[in-house]
Amino acid sequence: MREYDAAHYDVIVVGAGHAGSEAALAAARMGRETLLLTINLDMVAFMPCNPSLGGPAKGIVVREIDALGGQMGRNIDKTYIQMRMLNTGKGPAVRALRAQADKHAYHRTMKRTIETTEHLTLRQGIAESLIVEDGVCKGIVTNTGARYSADSVILTAGTASRGKIIIGELTYSSGPNNSIPSIKLSESLEDNGFVLTRFKTGTPPRVDGTTIDFSKTEEQPGDKEPNHFSFETPDSAYLKDQLSCWMTYTNDTTHQVIRENLDRAPMFTGVIEGVGPRYCPSIEDKIVRFADKPRHQIFLEPEGRETEEYYVGDFSTSMPEEIQHKMIHSIEGLENAQMMRPGYAIEYDVVEPWQLKPTLETKVVENLYTAGQMNGTSGYEEAAGQGLMAGINAALKQTGRDPFILDRSEAYIGVLIDDLVTKGTKEPYRLLTSRAEYRLMLRHDNADLRLTEKGHALGLINDDRFDSYEVKKAAVEAELARLATIRLKPTPEIQAFLAAKGEAPLKDGVLASDFLKRPEVKYADLIQFIPAVEGIDNRVVEQVEIQIKYAGYIDKEKAKIAKLKRMEAKKIPANIDYDAIEGLATEGRQKLQKIQPETLAQASRIGGVNPADIGILSVYIQQGKIAKVK
Amino acid sequence: MREYDAAHYDVIVVGAGHAGSEAALAAARMGRETLLLTINLDMVAFMPCNPSLGGPAKGIVVREIDALGGQMGRNIDKTYIQMRMLNTGKGPAVRALRAQADKHAYHRTMKRTIETTEHLTLRQGIAESLIVEDGVCKGIVTNTGARYSADSVILTAGTASRGKIIIGELTYSSGPNNSIPSIKLSESLEDNGFVLTRFKTGTPPRVDGTTIDFSKTEEQPGDKEPNHFSFETPDSAYLKDQLSCWMTYTNDTTHQVIRENLDRAPMFTGVIEGVGPRYCPSIEDKIVRFADKPRHQIFLEPEGRETEEYYVGDFSTSMPEEIQHKMIHSIEGLENAQMMRPGYAIEYDVVEPWQLKPTLETKVVENLYTAGQMNGTSGYEEAAGQGLMAGINAALKQTGRDPFILDRSEAYIGVLIDDLVTKGTKEPYRLLTSRAEYRLMLRHDNADLRLTEKGHALGLINDDRFDSYEVKKAAVEAELARLATIRLKPTPEIQAFLAAKGEAPLKDGVLASDFLKRPEVKYADLIQFIPAVEGIDNRVVEQVEIQIKYAGYIDKEKAKIAKLKRMEAKKIPANIDYDAIEGLATEGRQKLQKIQPETLAQASRIGGVNPADIGILSVYIQQGKIAKVK
Ligand SMILES: Cc1cc2nc3c(=O)[nH]c(=O)nc-3n(C[C@H](O)[C@H](O)[C@H](O)COP(=O)(O)OP(=O)(O)OC[C@H]3O[C@@H](n4cnc5c(N)ncnc54)[C@H](O)[C@@H]3O)c2cc1C
Ligand SMILES: Cc1cc2nc3c(=O)[nH]c(=O)nc-3n(C[C@H](O)[C@H](O)[C@H](O)COP(=O)(O)OP(=O)(O)OC[C@H]3O[C@@H](n4cnc5c(N)ncnc54)[C@H](O)[C@@H]3O)c2cc1C
Repeated sequence: MREYDAAHYDVIVVGAGHAGSEAALAAARMGRETLLLTINLDMVAFMPCNPSLGGPAKGIVVREIDALGGQMGRNIDKTYIQMRMLNTGKGPAVRALRAQADKHAYHRTMKRTIETTEHLTLRQGIAESLIVEDGVCKGIVTNTGARYSADSVILTAGTASRGKIIIGELTYSSGPNNSIPSIKLSESLEDNGFVLTRFKTGTPPRVDGTTIDFSKTEEQPGDKEPNHFSFETPDSAYLKDQLSCWMTYTNDTTHQVIRENLDRAPMFTGVIEGVGPRYCPSIEDKIVRFADKPRHQIFLEPEGRETEEYYVGDFSTSMPEEIQHKMIHSIEGLENAQMMRPGYAIEYDVVEPWQLKPTLETKVVENLYTAGQMNGTSGYEEAAGQGLMAGINAALKQTGRDPFILDRSEAYIGVLIDDLVTKGTKEPYRLLTSRAEYRLMLRHDNADLRLTEKGHALGLINDDRFDSYEVKKAAVEAELARLATIRLKPTPEIQAFLAAKGEAPLKDGVLASDFLKRPEVKYADLIQFIPAVEGIDNRVVEQVEIQIKYAGYIDKEKAKIAKLKRMEAKKIPANIDYDAIEGLATEGRQKLQKIQPETLAQASRIGGVNPADIGILSVYIQQGKIAKVK
Repeated sequence: MREYDAAHYDVIVVGAGHAGSEAALAAARMGRETLLLTINLDMVAFMPCNPSLGGPAKGIVVREIDALGGQMGRNIDKTYIQMRMLNTGKGPAVRALRAQADKHAYHRTMKRTIETTEHLTLRQGIAESLIVEDGVCKGIVTNTGARYSADSVILTAGTASRGKIIIGELTYSSGPNNSIPSIKLSESLEDNGFVLTRFKTGTPPRVDGTTIDFSKTEEQPGDKEPNHFSFETPDSAYLKDQLSCWMTYTNDTTHQVIRENLDRAPMFTGVIEGVGPRYCPSIEDKIVRFADKPRHQIFLEPEGRETEEYYVGDFSTSMPEEIQHKMIHSIEGLENAQMMRPGYAIEYDVVEPWQLKPTLETKVVENLYTAGQMNGTSGYEEAAGQGLMAGINAALKQTGRDPFILDRSEAYIGVLIDDLVTKGTKEPYRLLTSRAEYRLMLRHDNADLRLTEKGHALGLINDDRFDSYEVKKAAVEAELARLATIRLKPTPEIQAFLAAKGEAPLKDGVLASDFLKRPEVKYADLIQFIPAVEGIDNRVVEQVEIQIKYAGYIDKEKAKIAKLKRMEAKKIPANIDYDAIEGLATEGRQKLQKIQPETLAQASRIGGVNPADIGILSVYIQQGKIAKVK
């Protein structure tokens, strides 16, 4: 291609998926002239798999993105068709909000947001190569020959990177949903010294809702109680007319059809070389791995308000189309269901994430960032969280400000990125509650309290929003303080109330906050016995209740966090030569050399680095003895 | 690919563009079990070029489709963002309705219509080969190995057929808008003996509306007066909140930029081999062909209600992207406009349409039909009209009913198909008012009167709709009859009225209908002087007015049509051997052999067949002398 000098931008973001959309919005909102380049404008923020956002851990990420001034929460709040709070019976750490999305409306809304954001240009085009000079990224070149120069480039190519679709014996080069794949960008990354690997993911068939017998399935309606992802969305905006999901099950016949055709399953015949997501297995994988499970749940999820397509949730498959028809028809409620699109697997390139700094800038090429699925994660929320952080850090670096890194105690986003850059990942990485050491701190309900100030300092949360946050925060503190002063006497009413709840009677007077600690006592109960605060907000009550009830656990986590922070404060200088440090074990030395951790805490989390190594390292750092590479 | 026997359908339609959508809906509504197979479900009834429907001749086709029970009119009425009646100052034959579409909403609405239509299955998949046995089409095989059998197959592959996108020096294999092209189906057509040719079409860039300076352009708002495409849509549904289009112009600088870069214009460097549409030329073509025109109009048309993308109408181009930026920035109002997608040309395969019968069944393979862009036309409406006819004819043939053919006096659809199958086309064929000999009969206002009965007989117009049609028709006839009996006397009021209008005074009493014939007299004027009919419908008045005012011309056309009908009634037996007919001129003989016309009228329209040939043929037919091929 004949090249031409196209414009200069402060930041160029390649790919307008979930990662790229957030990255570009953040950079532009921080005042950087930003170009967002993507293969197909009709697929901006497209959901190639499940039409939903949120759920355990992921839902918390959406709220974190929102508290930091990202877009995902606000836009799903405009386009959901069902909202549900999961795990309401369990502790607050695992509660999670989940929305069914109108996936097309979500796309349109995000595209519109991008189009109307200042400093941001959205353009269709395919980035084919990086312009790198002396190890520094200076821009990109597109398929149409446009040479864009830039101070930072953020790549978020998702599953399009040398994408290959697989359906039974059929394989072809393609991005998700039969879109154009990105081939040359991968080659350019390799040319620039990046180590790539192959991952795979899969999606289930879609069926025509007019051919489903819903009477044979179990309805899963949305919640009556209002909830939203964004801290900006008022409860009054809660959607009344929600669509239901429907639950059904696989059965013996389904399993038999699959088992009889395993010799044609690309998962098992060697056709699929990429590593798949352990926590999102295909149905054929589940049948093999859990051979004695008599059935698996299947969720039928509407893909939007204006279509009859249903997503067959938890039924991801790359079996031949012929077999997929049979599998579907074996399921109760789907006996006559017409398949509209077959399920498929997709293999794609991943930048092994140990090549990244915690800012998501690559160690290999300066001013180049990668985010999203191409860093080895799986999931829209994980992608969006990374995109936001990459956009923020690119903008910060350009303006000479300190990097923005969230640690593991501050946000799931911190856990995610720290895991990626410290441990790498051998399979598509999905956030799980269990990955967070401080999960009682990383709740969905307190994401605003954890992160709004940071978002505001970055310039991503406006003053209005910040003011409401401060009002809420003050109200929570005031109420906590008030409850810590009011005493309840063991009146007959209180004793009767406790007896009715099966709780022990009061022996003495007790602080209102201590009274609320009792498992059976709710804030709503408490204020029968003490003066109420007029007009107190639901969300304030929620905080007060959780912070008081879980105070013991929370305090313990806070103590652990304080220790972490001390370790995190011990910075390791950049580019040090671990070979020059005596006494390190061989494996530890190699891993440290590869990962180049930025803090002692990060070093301690690297698999293969043992406590003795950390001890030696700690002494060396204190003595300022470490030898730089150059 | 390993193949498997998939289902049997009465009708299989390949491609859910504008042609395929209508074909499939018609066949299914006529009770045929129909499969509609398309490459990407997210592009059903997608508009790859202008976000609008209608205009001269084309708008009439939309109404004809509607009167026959097709879908295009009903769906644009649900999704337009602006409606305008064009040429209101001119005669009724050239008046035309034009709508700006919310193109994404149009897609969604058509997809939903298809999903919810009985007997119709919509499925994503790529048809790769035809199953043909002894010259009869028996089904198709898809990329996933599905072998579908069918009684009829209708191909509507549009510009995806071996599509090749061209932007300056860049060319790549692709369907419209970077979608997957259809490669193997073309090969299968060739294998089965079809003659294919290459056409090309092009589309302009899209720009970001937030970067247009609309103050430098002229606003083109929608009409206040309600109008719709479908005869079903009530005026009360007329959209109040319409979006405007905006007009600007090319100028010297634009032309200079283009002229200086003609050496890089694929149109002129030989890169483009396909034949382009004469009536939709690219801007570089216009600059070259009309070198002394100082400027060309450009229309900025919103692509939908929820996007900021604007279509730069009448600015189609395949210049290199670099030049496109410059061309855009040279235009008033677009100085700072950001291009979101570059314009491009696309080359694609066409089935030379002389290989078709007037039913759109191919002569080469029985029970195989082709429709839309792949028959050499250009335009959504032309495609939809053909699709409807192919769907209807496939259904009719299967149920042993007579074919449904519209002649040139009955509908623009008739003109279109007759032109295609009789004359073939050397370039993308577009309907123009001038192609119709009987254009005063083929008005947009009387499409219902022309075609509703036929649609009802086919089972595509339901009884309710038919009843309203009959009520209207009766009302028109009653009012015509009434006006032909009421006499107006030359009262002082009438004479004063005529004087004010500058018309000659009445000498004598006159029939109300004759009074209405006067150019300056409107129906609204007339009923000041005679009793009004209470509650008479606007649309009835429109008919009465036109039918009376243009009675003279209409009668003349009717006489010509009667002659045509006599010729059309002279059927030529199928598969005759023109070599066995003595006296035919060589060229006429060859053309007749190739086209195999079905009537003497059709034979007379074949270029190269002269009146003497027709005379000879006519005698032979009357004498039953023609020798069959076999
Ligand atoms: C078939 C399938 C199944 C999936 N299943 C699951 C699942 O079960 N669970 C789950 O959590 N996640 C699943 N995912 C993953 C989910 O789609 C991703 O995690 C998420 O979309 C990642 O967002 P992203 O922004 O990183 O990438 P994407 O959403 O893929 O966006 C990348 C964007 O970049 C564009 N692009 C790529 N290369 C270029 C280039 N060179 N120039 C310009 N633009 C470019 C692409 O066109 C695309 O728009 C699945 C994805 C697919 C495709
Ligand atoms: C770039 C561009 C510019 C254009 N400019 C103009 C213009 O200026 N003026 C104008 O009047 N018209 C223009 N058109 C033409 C207009 O798009 C077509 O006339 C109209 O869309 C034709 O409708 P169709 O149904 O015949 O084909 P399409 O709308 O192209 O639909 C064909 C469908 O078939 C599907 N398909 C193809 N092959 C297969 C297969 N093997 N298996 C399954 N599905 C298949 C495709 O994916 C597609 O969905 C332009 C088109 C393009 C692409």
